[in-house]
Amino acid sequence: MDKRDNLSVVIHKKEDLRVEQTELPTEPGPYEVQLASNTVGICGSDVHFWKDGCIDKWVINEPIVTGHESSATVIKVGPNVKNLKVGDRVSVEPGVGCMSCQVCKDGFYNLCPDVLFHAVPPTGGSLRRYYNHSSAFCHKLPDNMSYAEGALMEPLAVAVYACKRAGITEGSGQKVMVTGAGPVGLLTAMAAKALGAQDVCILDINENRLKFAQQMGIAKTLLINMKLDTEALATEVVDLLGGSPTITLECSGAESSLNLAIYVTQDGGNVVMVGLNHRKVTVFLSSAACREVNLLGIKRYRHSFPLAIYLVSSGKLDVKPLITHTYRIEEAVQAFETASSQTSGAIKVQIECFERP
Amino acid sequence: MDKRDNLSVVIHKKEDLRVEQTELPTEPGPYEVQLASNTVGICGSDVHFWKDGCIDKWVINEPIVTGHESSATVIKVGPNVKNLKVGDRVSVEPGVGCMSCQVCKDGFYNLCPDVLFHAVPPTGGSLRRYYNHSSAFCHKLPDNMSYAEGALMEPLAVAVYACKRAGITEGSGQKVMVTGAGPVGLLTAMAAKALGAQDVCILDINENRLKFAQQMGIAKTLLINMKLDTEALATEVVDLLGGSPTITLECSGAESSLNLAIYVTQDGGNVVMVGLNHRKVTVFLSSAACREVNLLGIKRYRHSFPLAIYLVSSGKLDVKPLITHTYRIEEAVQAFETASSQTSGAIKVQIECFERP
Amino acid sequence: MDKRDNLSVVIHKKEDLRVEQTELPTEPGPYEVQLASNTVGICGSDVHFWKDGCIDKWVINEPIVTGHESSATVIKVGPNVKNLKVGDRVSVEPGVGCMSCQVCKDGFYNLCPDVLFHAVPPTGGSLRRYYNHSSAFCHKLPDNMSYAEGALMEPLAVAVYACKRAGITEGSGQKVMVTGAGPVGLLTAMAAKALGAQDVCILDINENRLKFAQQMGIAKTLLINMKLDTEALATEVVDLLGGSPTITLECSGAESSLNLAIYVTQDGGNVVMVGLNHRKVTVFLSSAACREVNLLGIKRYRHSFPLAIYLVSSGKLDVKPLITHTYRIEEAVQAFETASSQTSGAIKVQIECFERP
Amino acid sequence: MDKRDNLSVVIHKKEDLRVEQTELPTEPGPYEVQLASNTVGICGSDVHFWKDGCIDKWVINEPIVTGHESSATVIKVGPNVKNLKVGDRVSVEPGVGCMSCQVCKDGFYNLCPDVLFHAVPPTGGSLRRYYNHSSAFCHKLPDNMSYAEGALMEPLAVAVYACKRAGITEGSGQKVMVTGAGPVGLLTAMAAKALGAQDVCILDINENRLKFAQQMGIAKTLLINMKLDTEALATEVVDLLGGSPTITLECSGAESSLNLAIYVTQDGGNVVMVGLNHRKVTVFLSSAACREVNLLGIKRYRHSFPLAIYLVSSGKLDVKPLITHTYRIEEAVQAFETASSQTSGAIKVQIECFERP
Repeated sequence: MDKRDNLSVVIHKKEDLRVEQTELPTEPGPYEVQLASNTVGICGSDVHFWKDGCIDKWVINEPIVTGHESSATVIKVGPNVKNLKVGDRVSVEPGVGCMSCQVCKDGFYNLCPDVLFHAVPPTGGSLRRYYNHSSAFCHKLPDNMSYAEGALMEPLAVAVYACKRAGITEGSGQKVMVTGAGPVGLLTAMAAKALGAQDVCILDINENRLKFAQQMGIAKTLLINMKLDTEALATEVVDLLGGSPTITLECSGAESSLNLAIYVTQDGGNVVMVGLNHRKVTVFLSSAACREVNLLGIKRYRHSFPLAIYLVSSGKLDVKPLITHTYRIEEAVQAFETASSQTSGAIKVQIECFERP
Repeated sequence: MDKRDNLSVVIHKKEDLRVEQTELPTEPGPYEVQLASNTVGICGSDVHFWKDGCIDKWVINEPIVTGHESSATVIKVGPNVKNLKVGDRVSVEPGVGCMSCQVCKDGFYNLCPDVLFHAVPPTGGSLRRYYNHSSAFCHKLPDNMSYAEGALMEPLAVAVYACKRAGITEGSGQKVMVTGAGPVGLLTAMAAKALGAQDVCILDINENRLKFAQQMGIAKTLLINMKLDTEALATEVVDLLGGSPTITLECSGAESSLNLAIYVTQDGGNVVMVGLNHRKVTVFLSSAACREVNLLGIKRYRHSFPLAIYLVSSGKLDVKPLITHTYRIEEAVQAFETASSQTSGAIKVQIECFERP
Repeated sequence: MDKRDNLSVVIHKKEDLRVEQTELPTEPGPYEVQLASNTVGICGSDVHFWKDGCIDKWVINEPIVTGHESSATVIKVGPNVKNLKVGDRVSVEPGVGCMSCQVCKDGFYNLCPDVLFHAVPPTGGSLRRYYNHSSAFCHKLPDNMSYAEGALMEPLAVAVYACKRAGITEGSGQKVMVTGAGPVGLLTAMAAKALGAQDVCILDINENRLKFAQQMGIAKTLLINMKLDTEALATEVVDLLGGSPTITLECSGAESSLNLAIYVTQDGGNVVMVGLNHRKVTVFLSSAACREVNLLGIKRYRHSFPLAIYLVSSGKLDVKPLITHTYRIEEAVQAFETASSQTSGAIKVQIECFERP
Repeated sequence: MDKRDNLSVVIHKKEDLRVEQTELPTEPGPYEVQLASNTVGICGSDVHFWKDGCIDKWVINEPIVTGHESSATVIKVGPNVKNLKVGDRVSVEPGVGCMSCQVCKDGFYNLCPDVLFHAVPPTGGSLRRYYNHSSAFCHKLPDNMSYAEGALMEPLAVAVYACKRAGITEGSGQKVMVTGAGPVGLLTAMAAKALGAQDVCILDINENRLKFAQQMGIAKTLLINMKLDTEALATEVVDLLGGSPTITLECSGAESSLNLAIYVTQDGGNVVMVGLNHRKVTVFLSSAACREVNLLGIKRYRHSFPLAIYLVSSGKLDVKPLITHTYRIEEAVQAFETASSQTSGAIKVQIECFERP
């Protein structure tokens, strides 16, 4: 390959996104593979870094390659790699633990203090044509899955991990409330259903999102009336589900949704906080405490790509309708503009790194 | 026994506590025993009902017998009782599930919607000479335990249940922070140590309480400087424990302690909310969520009396020093005054229901 | 109702089964309901008691009503019953724990030393027109389920409980081997699939059973060649599943199947012993031990009727094709003969206790 | 250091053990440390390889360094090592998983199909002066622990892992039976006590071993009378423990002990098979199955060194009395003879790799 052909999408600073050549990767290490990128989705966090130059304490001080929702083709394998071979099609898990600290050895690699995550400064992302990656964090795609689907496994991993943390299991008769119907909320509701929740409802303040949720098979939707208080909203949820939710997957980060979750979730149930609110919130914690309603968080995911791939490959969950726009890498700026637009109708925008053959 | 001899301590209404005769119990039901009360401890909630006439939504509208920390002697057994016989000395578990709903069948009897709990209106308490109780909720005292110790198993059950919910296990090398050094905080710290926490520290704003904690074997104490912010307090805790706590047992209910718990507890760790704050609190929930710090509540306890009894009986935990005052039932008003006094130095006040032989 | 109308099927002694009148039940107790039986399935154990007069240590010394796979209609409710009302259609869980011992309080009621189980001497069974039963052990049937299906929830409860003990969960990518394709093996394979096993195979020495399994949706079947040794059989299983099973559900009780299970199950996997062999077996236990293959048993089931009902009601599992014969209660002897015949082609034989309206 | 000074103990073939120079290690890899061996214990398996030239399918075809119970000093660190520095004293965990397969990522590194374990052909052992090792598998010794204790952490890791698999937890009131009082049985009984078993008994056919067990604090011992059948032995165990064991840790591998374990363990209890019997055994598996007695195996251990170190460092368990003999590396042949002798009274024989300063 041409030494200079590593077309990449780089955030230089706030509101400065460029498509440009970057260094080609070195030879892959003993446990690494070298990948030719295929499809990369744009996540809300990518847009935030572009628009704001930072998220919370992570600040872009140097130009950084963006992107962390990727599928790719293996083009080289390091000497100790056993699980993959050249030509394999993979979904790329973007957060790599050190695998030598106690946290990693215990299996909690997402909590590793030295985890490296694509496109979180100072670690470069995967929206470039070529890069190396730990082979243990590349998941082979079954023949019946496309690269476009492969690039959606990252947000789906968030969703299935949230469901697992919540304890959703087939046949437990669980009633699940999902608050927030953005891409993650949608995928979470779909995953809850695929993993066996008996009944799932989804809430949002945006009617279009709820319509889309219904098209995706989430029949029970509730348009949040902002004038109602927590008790009144709770009554609507209980009516909709025929009882209190045993599990709530909170995907909005909104204070009012957290209070609804605490109020309406059944005694002994779980609330998983998927959405983040980068501020303090005022909530009735004692009400959760004295009813053994647990508030659980997630840091991205661990051990969740295989499950995400399985759900799609087995036909239990169809992610394709979420892909509303696809661009070529040369059109990356336009792709980011579509992703950030309120009026584009975009749900998931993806970028293809090479011309289709 | 004399038909009228059932001396009882009755809260008639706010600030109206009387020692008076009440009805003797009927014959015990098939699975019940009849008990002669021995020792009953006064809990903060008993004092609240007396002083305020209510706690949260539970209001005293009718005179109600108080007391729920009890030891007793079995004097009659119902026809189907197998686990107890006349003369057995027991610690009395005051919350009885219906044992026929799905929640009870699953083993979560403390979450039973029809649970009856001593001295929570409208259910009468155990601070009376005679009453019937479900035999399944009477726990036989070993010979090496006194009735006074038996009456302390109820608050100790809260403590051990909190530790179990937190996942404290021998040999896990857990560092534990306990916030609040009142009777429950003290017992919780002692239980954490007895159940195998590697290191335990306790925090309070009251120096005397911390001195007492040290006498009870909790060497690491921290007097909270109210002028410090969360970050500064966290630094002190980390210095004291030689690292972040893996588990926090929050026993104060204070908003500042909840924020400290969320901030300082290690990624993936558990915060158990033992103390209650009957208002909303303003906390940085996202900080817990994105580090997988779980906020767990407890509703009293389940399956915890046998463990509490074992810890005391085996000598791993000594509750006797907590008993600072003992009164006769005729002196109940004075006992309650001592228990509610800020200057009495009382930790646990107990009442004996009969003259000692 | 007529005082003498309680037509019942009674085993008097070995090979002596009679349809005769028995006593009508007394009024239901506080937590009991009175039931009018609808449909009762015949289980292999019922046939054994009839043919042999005993199973293992349980011997029929007195005439005993048989039957424990029942659906019924509630005709009276005891004063404390909350979960049911007259007219409700229920599936009857035949094993009732005492609900007051520690084992029951912990939720393991199937292991209660005082459990009473229908048709296991000296407890009478449910193949009679009227009887009382603990309301907590009657499970309401959804409107979309028939009484005939309701009477199949008991064997399906065995199957789903075995799957739960094995740890089968949706999306774990589990490969499951079921050995033995009798009614329980069939239901177990069907439940494994419904609960999310990625791939299920079933083995038997009888080709007809395997054909029926394929009709029930278990595509991968293996006719056991009795001339092959364990290693050779294991190779066939690995070829069939594309790898070693992560879970084995052993439903035959055969020594050779136990050895196959131990040999072929993946390191760290679970073998659940559903089938019983009332003798010692010669097995390579160390091979399981040093690969962390766990051998787990089941004592009937606990907490499994709701899950069984849910799987059928939600359409995830269809039990109706298993019902090959239906008789009236007056024809009970003929029904038992069909159930015990090798040539009748019977899978599940059921008896209806009343004329259909 | 002298290029040729890597004195090692090498098994050349059956009954041919030599103390000789071997190659010095290369520079440590990125995540490795270089170790100067201090103390190495002799395990029964080392003796077996020496006496028989093989264990089961593992055969010594090439000369191989023996030894896998080691403590050492860090003398070099690879560039990516964070947890250790030169001069650190460590206990060496001898089995290293690949840390890149799914099994390792899930935390089950002891089940990794590519695990490398010291002194199991073809992987060399640690009874040599210098070698490299994965830093993640070196556990720092606290100041209050000696190298001799450090070299005992390996067999203690087996013991604590068995206890963890069994579910031993402080305060559960568990009664534990340990069968077999060799070094592993002894350590297992001691670990069970330290981890909170309420009552522990140990059985053996050798009276001296039981006397030693009593010196180590296991008060309840039972000399097995080989003339008694399983039922009679079970009665003795129940008398000794005041009830059936809730947990059995089988450390003998004997068929009779396995049958006792299956017979006497309480319904729903766990039997962990620590001892191995390299043949088939004839056991009453159905008796375990129908009472939900689980038969669980262990493959060495995972995540167990920190717990082993903690128990010794905290004073909860004293391993020093087990060390009956200590030799210099030059005396290795004599050390192995002592370890294999029936009359030496040896419990644990250790070898020091350097002169003490």
